[in-house]
Amino acid sequence: MSATPTTLPPVIVLVRPQLGENIGKAARAMLNFGLAELRLVAPRDGWPNPSAGPAASGADIVLEQAKVFESVADAVADCAHVYATTVRKRGVTKPVLTPEAAALAIHAAPGRAAILFGPERSGLETDDVAVARTIITVPINPEFGSINLAQAVILIAYEWSKGMGLAQPPETELPPPALQEELDGMIAQLDAMLVDSDFFFPPARTPVTRRTLRTLLTKPGWSAQEVRTMRGVLSALAGKQPRRR
Amino acid sequence: MSATPTTLPPVIVLVRPQLGENIGKAARAMLNFGLAELRLVAPRDGWPNPSAGPAASGADIVLEQAKVFESVADAVADCAHVYATTVRKRGVTKPVLTPEAAALAIHAAPGRAAILFGPERSGLETDDVAVARTIITVPINPEFGSINLAQAVILIAYEWSKGMGLAQPPETELPPPALQEELDGMIAQLDAMLVDSDFFFPPARTPVTRRTLRTLLTKPGWSAQEVRTMRGVLSALAGKQPRRR
Repeated sequence: MSATPTTLPPVIVLVRPQLGENIGKAARAMLNFGLAELRLVAPRDGWPNPSAGPAASGADIVLEQAKVFESVADAVADCAHVYATTVRKRGVTKPVLTPEAAALAIHAAPGRAAILFGPERSGLETDDVAVARTIITVPINPEFGSINLAQAVILIAYEWSKGMGLAQPPETELPPPALQEELDGMIAQLDAMLVDSDFFFPPARTPVTRRTLRTLLTKPGWSAQEVRTMRGVLSALAGKQPRRR
Repeated sequence: MSATPTTLPPVIVLVRPQLGENIGKAARAMLNFGLAELRLVAPRDGWPNPSAGPAASGADIVLEQAKVFESVADAVADCAHVYATTVRKRGVTKPVLTPEAAALAIHAAPGRAAILFGPERSGLETDDVAVARTIITVPINPEFGSINLAQAVILIAYEWSKGMGLAQPPETELPPPALQEELDGMIAQLDAMLVDSDFFFPPARTPVTRRTLRTLLTKPGWSAQEVRTMRGVLSALAGKQPRRR
């Protein structure tokens, strides 16, 4: 790409990919449109995978630099924006963008973006989607919605590449959202306090309640400073860190 | 498809395709975005090809209705507009469009359009390109321009589908933000708890701290339901409303 990017290229995260061949094809699709950073969450057949290289048709650098993580949370810990791609409608109340709109958003927002893609057979689980702040849905033939993993990757990469010569420096001085790990730290702090307060009841509903809280706390896009403020608030409420006098 | 097409969908023409698997994947990519008419010019391994069906992942109707021709000229004889896809620059003096611009042109022009895709290894020959009036070139990473056949097909089909009404922004189920009085109630509840916890210190900084907290809690645009959830969280932390057991 000849243009100078004003924001970092997004990271492509394949969540529990099944076939090495598809990992290779995704790498090729990425490099076709100038994306080079691939992360793999718990690839089914381990990593490296001998089937990936031939399918990458020369995009070896993407595979060589790919990093493996145990969880989605680990894979996106250093990212400020997390997008989940899914074709199915779910009961999640998050903004849904087309690839085109998501590409514009990624170019416009300061801070690193990660884009999650689910396993070939089943797509992202609800818990994976819960990590994201925004959903990307490809508007697809409603009567034939089965899209190949590498095909989904290329559509997103293609739309992103359109903005490479056009992206203007962001005009806002808004600080970027906190890193995912900072957000997770705050959520964990609140969660521990709520466990102590018997908030989670009945137990059968706890996973849903946790997801609701995560969605709600992910929605603001709080900056690192705001997350620290909230953690101060929580600490004060817990009486753990009495204010200096 | 919900929208009524104003022009016929374009015909996808694979010129001398080599692998049955790639024909199947191209068929799947087509149907993903509502294209169903596939034509094959002199497929290397004959037709039908047993490798095509499994790769089509359910897009069998496209393969079943595919027609085979001996030459490019025969394959596009009934079409009014012929586009040739190529990534390489050639010495031909024809208009070159991006997939986006070509999709707009196809939607705007009356008469059937055909889009030619070359063999996997070499792409379209100069004689094939000569049949076309217009060239489509995908703006691709100049340092890694090797694009897979089915990937090229899906990018064109995807851009075409944007004009079909499929590409409407997906309906989000996002509820509107809570009313200001609901938000104020939550902020007041937290404020009272923070006063009890000696959070506001020193007194001279209290107005600034209150403003910071208000900004932070206004930022999310939480819905009425989310505000109620947060109030439940606060009540639990305050131990004021122990959960029913």
